[in-house]
Amino acid sequence: MPPYEGVCMSLRSEMESIARRAKEAAGKLASVSTPQKDRALLSMADLLDGNRKGILRSNEEDLANAKERGLKKTLLDRLIFAEARIDSRIKALQAIAELDDPTGDIRDLRSLANGLKVGRVRVPIGVIGMVYESRPHVTVNAGALCLKSGNAAILRGGSEVINTNRCLGELWAEALREANLPPGAIQVVPVTDREAVRELLSLDEYIDLIIPRGGESLIKTVMELSTIPVIKHLYGVCHVYVDETADLDEARRICIDSKTFAPEVCNAAETFLVAEGIAEEFLPRLEKDLLQQGVEIRGCEKTRKIMEKALAATEEDWSTEYLGLVVSVKVLPGVDEAIEHINRYGSGHTESIVTGDIRSAERFLGGVDSGVLLVNASTMFCDGSELGMGAEIGISTDKIHARGPMGMADLTTYKTLVFGSGHCMG
Amino acid sequence: MPPYEGVCMSLRSEMESIARRAKEAAGKLASVSTPQKDRALLSMADLLDGNRKGILRSNEEDLANAKERGLKKTLLDRLIFAEARIDSRIKALQAIAELDDPTGDIRDLRSLANGLKVGRVRVPIGVIGMVYESRPHVTVNAGALCLKSGNAAILRGGSEVINTNRCLGELWAEALREANLPPGAIQVVPVTDREAVRELLSLDEYIDLIIPRGGESLIKTVMELSTIPVIKHLYGVCHVYVDETADLDEARRICIDSKTFAPEVCNAAETFLVAEGIAEEFLPRLEKDLLQQGVEIRGCEKTRKIMEKALAATEEDWSTEYLGLVVSVKVLPGVDEAIEHINRYGSGHTESIVTGDIRSAERFLGGVDSGVLLVNASTMFCDGSELGMGAEIGISTDKIHARGPMGMADLTTYKTLVFGSGHCMG
Repeated sequence: MPPYEGVCMSLRSEMESIARRAKEAAGKLASVSTPQKDRALLSMADLLDGNRKGILRSNEEDLANAKERGLKKTLLDRLIFAEARIDSRIKALQAIAELDDPTGDIRDLRSLANGLKVGRVRVPIGVIGMVYESRPHVTVNAGALCLKSGNAAILRGGSEVINTNRCLGELWAEALREANLPPGAIQVVPVTDREAVRELLSLDEYIDLIIPRGGESLIKTVMELSTIPVIKHLYGVCHVYVDETADLDEARRICIDSKTFAPEVCNAAETFLVAEGIAEEFLPRLEKDLLQQGVEIRGCEKTRKIMEKALAATEEDWSTEYLGLVVSVKVLPGVDEAIEHINRYGSGHTESIVTGDIRSAERFLGGVDSGVLLVNASTMFCDGSELGMGAEIGISTDKIHARGPMGMADLTTYKTLVFGSGHCMG
Repeated sequence: MPPYEGVCMSLRSEMESIARRAKEAAGKLASVSTPQKDRALLSMADLLDGNRKGILRSNEEDLANAKERGLKKTLLDRLIFAEARIDSRIKALQAIAELDDPTGDIRDLRSLANGLKVGRVRVPIGVIGMVYESRPHVTVNAGALCLKSGNAAILRGGSEVINTNRCLGELWAEALREANLPPGAIQVVPVTDREAVRELLSLDEYIDLIIPRGGESLIKTVMELSTIPVIKHLYGVCHVYVDETADLDEARRICIDSKTFAPEVCNAAETFLVAEGIAEEFLPRLEKDLLQQGVEIRGCEKTRKIMEKALAATEEDWSTEYLGLVVSVKVLPGVDEAIEHINRYGSGHTESIVTGDIRSAERFLGGVDSGVLLVNASTMFCDGSELGMGAEIGISTDKIHARGPMGMADLTTYKTLVFGSGHCMG
């Protein structure tokens, strides 16, 4: 990629030319037909399939570099883009090609008393900048979701997988070419310099939205530097509250599933809140299951009187995302105290109540200020495809524009259309 | 207001305590009944009516200070909060009390194949910070719209009307008291120090959304400093395009109305684009009307060959918001060139096409990237209440969350609710 590696072009102008190409492409994408966009997605699926060797080789290079730098095993896992992950991306691309195009539909069409007809048409946002860490699958997924919704994507993944991402970027370029779409539609930023992110976040003339996915420090940096609107995908400190009226077997299954089905994802539960009326009966059974699954328990004082193996939870535990086989447990009087605890210590992500009492459920749904609230279901269901939204670009912990699982419809905006017949005010 | 004027409290902790009070109030407001919120709105209407003398006195103080500082007459006009403006605010409060409460409705409720039931409930955003210039009527309007939609409002108007705004802030406090609502629900920032805005924009722990209304420099400052999501209300460089197939009488009326009905508002037209096929016939008639209304014309070369009194437009004219009786005029081949011109020079606000050809209209609606697009109607109709949305908090020039006229529904977000019966993934 000669222009990026040359010495004559400053980082600023490199990033600006990427952004300008994206904006030009976005102008064209807005009126491209759905089948043409789908053709690019299916080409990309074929290219992933046909270029496994090259992908694996570049990924191995990244892994070797990471090992050399002494990266921890849990972090190494997130860099891997092996055969099974290539297969699942091929399936994801085919599934996204099958989804409805979210743009073009007209909503809220109505005639006003003054004779004007007013409606809103859904259109792409324009240029979307993704800033993310590790996992190279985002390079496939985010590119596909942006493209299908008519947006140009600028993808800036972590430096630790730059070889994999560059390789995927070249395949995207080829897929776009095959579908006769502009190369600016999906661009992987090939620069690892951290300054590149800073430049990107200031290009508000070209970029309409920044979606950061990653740890707290990445998100904080983006919030502080960006002059472009941002929709945060921050961490999840998620809760399961077990009400006094819960079916205790169901509650146990939901707690275990929420904690252990995929402990590394953001919607895994980190804290169980238990109504004191059932604590003596419920906690010993829950403890047995947790220990069997190898989960470390950190409890409040009341919890530790019942759960023999529980360590003492500190104040910090209540707001910690463990991302692993650790859980904190607190006994409290009832649903109101659970709501209070969640609103105080949670991250506004995903919470579940297990209850047999419809009034407790209503209080919980009304009182908790989080993106996704579940009744008698595992927090694992907080996922765009599980909730019938199709593939998701991530889970927004923001309240503006999109909250919770963010699907393709959330990658659109609207224009208000007004039809008159010579209407004037004067 | 002793705590604000004391010396022992730093500006940072002053602003933080305002924000904390707002957040506490927001927690309560989310579950307050509609009639109770309406009671506060109607109390405020009564208080405005009963305290005219005090309001006028504080406004006169602001005007006297402004005159002393040598403020221009056009700017002085924007500070005035006289009898007629008090009357119109009383009516606005009564109208907002009549509007439906935008919170609480459940949308997109559906059953999934896995047996989960999923829906979205509309809820308030939380704490909204308004940062605006001059016009004190925003202090009434924004407070009312935030309150009715269940949000707490922090209102930071311009220092030039600080006395009027303080007075209105005291009336809001009284209205909230009468309706038994927390005083943090609507707070006027009583500090004129510019640093107060900087502090406000960093309080992302408490404030969920910043809405800036004002000139480019205010908006730029907010974009650069805020770590809180921002929905911009920037200026409008709005266009009327007169197509070759337009009814020329209708076109003339729409042009004149869009320019002269209220030249000081953001959705007034600044540029007329005219198809060359009708320029010779249309422009002389338009010129006559414009001159009669005292409008200065700045035209492209082709325009100046037809409109005798037109001055030469410079490149800068095409992106200038005159906010007064000046208009720029350009002759171009047809709708495609009009679209190109608007996307290049416009501010993405409001544009109108006058045409008899449905294909031109479709091209225009599809190709122009602006918040509001009108066919055969004056740009003056770009207004929340004219478009049947009820009162508006402003016109967003952003694409994220709300675009174009921003009504109460745009002051809400949603929670995704999921109802299971013991659903687990494992």
